[in-house]
Amino acid sequence: MNRVTIPGFHPILIPSMSIITLTTDFGLSDWFVGTMKGVIASIAPDVRVIDITHGIRQGQVREGAFALAAAARYFPEGTIHVGVIDPGVGSSRHALAVECHHQIYIAPDNGLLSAVVPDGAPFRAYRLENDSLFLPTVSQTFHGRDVFAPVAAHLARGLPLTEVGPATDEWERLTLPGPVESFAGLCGEVVYIDQFGNALSSFPAELAANPGTVQLPDGTRTALVSCYADVDEGDLLAVAGSTGFIEVAIRNGSAAVVHQLEVGDPLILSAKK
Amino acid sequence: MNRVTIPGFHPILIPSMSIITLTTDFGLSDWFVGTMKGVIASIAPDVRVIDITHGIRQGQVREGAFALAAAARYFPEGTIHVGVIDPGVGSSRHALAVECHHQIYIAPDNGLLSAVVPDGAPFRAYRLENDSLFLPTVSQTFHGRDVFAPVAAHLARGLPLTEVGPATDEWERLTLPGPVESFAGLCGEVVYIDQFGNALSSFPAELAANPGTVQLPDGTRTALVSCYADVDEGDLLAVAGSTGFIEVAIRNGSAAVVHQLEVGDPLILSAKK
Amino acid sequence: MNRVTIPGFHPILIPSMSIITLTTDFGLSDWFVGTMKGVIASIAPDVRVIDITHGIRQGQVREGAFALAAAARYFPEGTIHVGVIDPGVGSSRHALAVECHHQIYIAPDNGLLSAVVPDGAPFRAYRLENDSLFLPTVSQTFHGRDVFAPVAAHLARGLPLTEVGPATDEWERLTLPGPVESFAGLCGEVVYIDQFGNALSSFPAELAANPGTVQLPDGTRTALVSCYADVDEGDLLAVAGSTGFIEVAIRNGSAAVVHQLEVGDPLILSAKK
Repeated sequence: MNRVTIPGFHPILIPSMSIITLTTDFGLSDWFVGTMKGVIASIAPDVRVIDITHGIRQGQVREGAFALAAAARYFPEGTIHVGVIDPGVGSSRHALAVECHHQIYIAPDNGLLSAVVPDGAPFRAYRLENDSLFLPTVSQTFHGRDVFAPVAAHLARGLPLTEVGPATDEWERLTLPGPVESFAGLCGEVVYIDQFGNALSSFPAELAANPGTVQLPDGTRTALVSCYADVDEGDLLAVAGSTGFIEVAIRNGSAAVVHQLEVGDPLILSAKK
Repeated sequence: MNRVTIPGFHPILIPSMSIITLTTDFGLSDWFVGTMKGVIASIAPDVRVIDITHGIRQGQVREGAFALAAAARYFPEGTIHVGVIDPGVGSSRHALAVECHHQIYIAPDNGLLSAVVPDGAPFRAYRLENDSLFLPTVSQTFHGRDVFAPVAAHLARGLPLTEVGPATDEWERLTLPGPVESFAGLCGEVVYIDQFGNALSSFPAELAANPGTVQLPDGTRTALVSCYADVDEGDLLAVAGSTGFIEVAIRNGSAAVVHQLEVGDPLILSAKK
Repeated sequence: MNRVTIPGFHPILIPSMSIITLTTDFGLSDWFVGTMKGVIASIAPDVRVIDITHGIRQGQVREGAFALAAAARYFPEGTIHVGVIDPGVGSSRHALAVECHHQIYIAPDNGLLSAVVPDGAPFRAYRLENDSLFLPTVSQTFHGRDVFAPVAAHLARGLPLTEVGPATDEWERLTLPGPVESFAGLCGEVVYIDQFGNALSSFPAELAANPGTVQLPDGTRTALVSCYADVDEGDLLAVAGSTGFIEVAIRNGSAAVVHQLEVGDPLILSAKK
């Protein structure tokens, strides 16, 4: 039996059923994602596979880390999350399986799991070194198919996590800096731009509870509002986003295009006087 | 037990198994769709989720209504269809659950369900107001995750439809005008442009049974044929489309690009003399 | 019970569970793929559907044949693969069901199954002519929904393959030419360009075991290396790809864009002196 882990939910008992999720930069135009699902179905035919996204920009580990964390907490306990944004595939980089908050994460050791293990949270981490769990032939370029998918499938069938390889405490965790106080206001940055051109900031959504403005790199200031419909079509706004951070958006438009926003751009949050 | 509802099919008995479908304008580049599936799996782990499409153009309610109706009738009885094209998210717009023809539809009250309830068809409609079915924290920007997905999951587990909120007869239905007779011929319009650049018209496909021509806004006329292969590569044609309407297309090309067609453009169907 | 067919895997017994895969050029923006899944769920509700890809370029049968073969061998025995790249839909072209290596393939008879039946491999082929298996109304433009999906669903429920129509030995198989020795080296070609701009060649990956170079049509030569990380970002490389062929790539870039590569372009592989 698993228990629901949605934040604030009173836990309910649900029938056990293994889920593997996939988060990659493979896109959907080729056969890569489908092939990973074939490998999983061959090893663990009863397991369900759910795509989180395959649209992470190629090699953007930090963006993948953000997306994985944004989605993972809405999945049931026991879910196995596979992340493959892996520019170092075929090199000597390690691969990891990490358990935290009753979920398991499998990914290359390159920072992709930085956001799913909060600072100070208890976790167990293992290196994927038991190659009897891999496909018999491991290519130099597609470990999603040859390593990560089969390891996840074996775990979903009940293999203990300790079987994947040796425990480790040394693995890469990107620092995801929080906002910093300054004379001008609270200094943060753009951490993700979604496909609508909304710029997700590093400002926690709670800061949107009081009146204030967000200043963009081009000098534009926009007021915090409570929903998109508070402004006219085409107008800029800042709003408490669904991911737990303040977002800068244009209603039915693209803030990223109009204001040329990119990941890493500085933002300043000021309380309204 | 469900019965198959494919038009013209002799109903057969199939084992009951809940299906939730998703039709949104969220795209697949971010974690939005995957997160909705995580919420559904947390509440109703045995339910299957099938994507109709997440590629509706942002905020285009009418196009979403067309897509949902085109697909829904091919699903088994008892299917729960979730539609989220929701430019008014966070505002005071209502949300709906509607049952019609033994299927259930859940969507914002903005016209998205206009085409799945034919004029005169019996239906039951309820407002989603029982917030004990929502996630404990409802964001201002992502009701797909916080409202529509959990309500659908509870219904898929067997919650009676009457539990979602009060019955209502007042909900928004877009008028989807049929073609009109004129001196020049039958006047219709482009109602959807698919990703191949085929322009779906408001002319019922039955009208393609007799010889005739379709005139485009740029004055071009093209003859009704019976299949793409009836014309050469690159040639324009009009054909009885699979959705039940006449389509204007270019064989292995894009009629929308070449003839600059947009949704709402007028078309004239003339019988061949 | 099915047995795993992953190459080199020691076969293991797994519980029987039907899988249908889909490989099309339908894209994901419209309702076409979702509708096929609705038809399958209506006929065979317990069957799982896995997308290989819907991103094959419109009408590119040869590229679809390559993608289908690249993925299919990673699926369990008994999997039913549906391929719909079908520029001749509605014409008099035949449709096929072919069994080879304990998997079943369903597709239009236009060469799409060329790569899944290796030269000399035993197979059984049948024409889809039993129209009692089709939807009651078959459109002229969407046989994916009206013919291929329902036939696959009936087979997944246990219908014997012999029931789909008459056996045939005459079906279209594209010649997929292997590399040819020449004075300059081994002459091959680009057979597929993936969404990262990697150019998959017709050179078997085994040829990458020895030092050598690959020459592009623009005269550029690049050395065979063992993984992407062997070169700097932005540098060209040739590597044993995961599909069993040598690939030409740019690390974190697009070889196809930079060197204007297209499917069919000639490549020359030379051993290093």
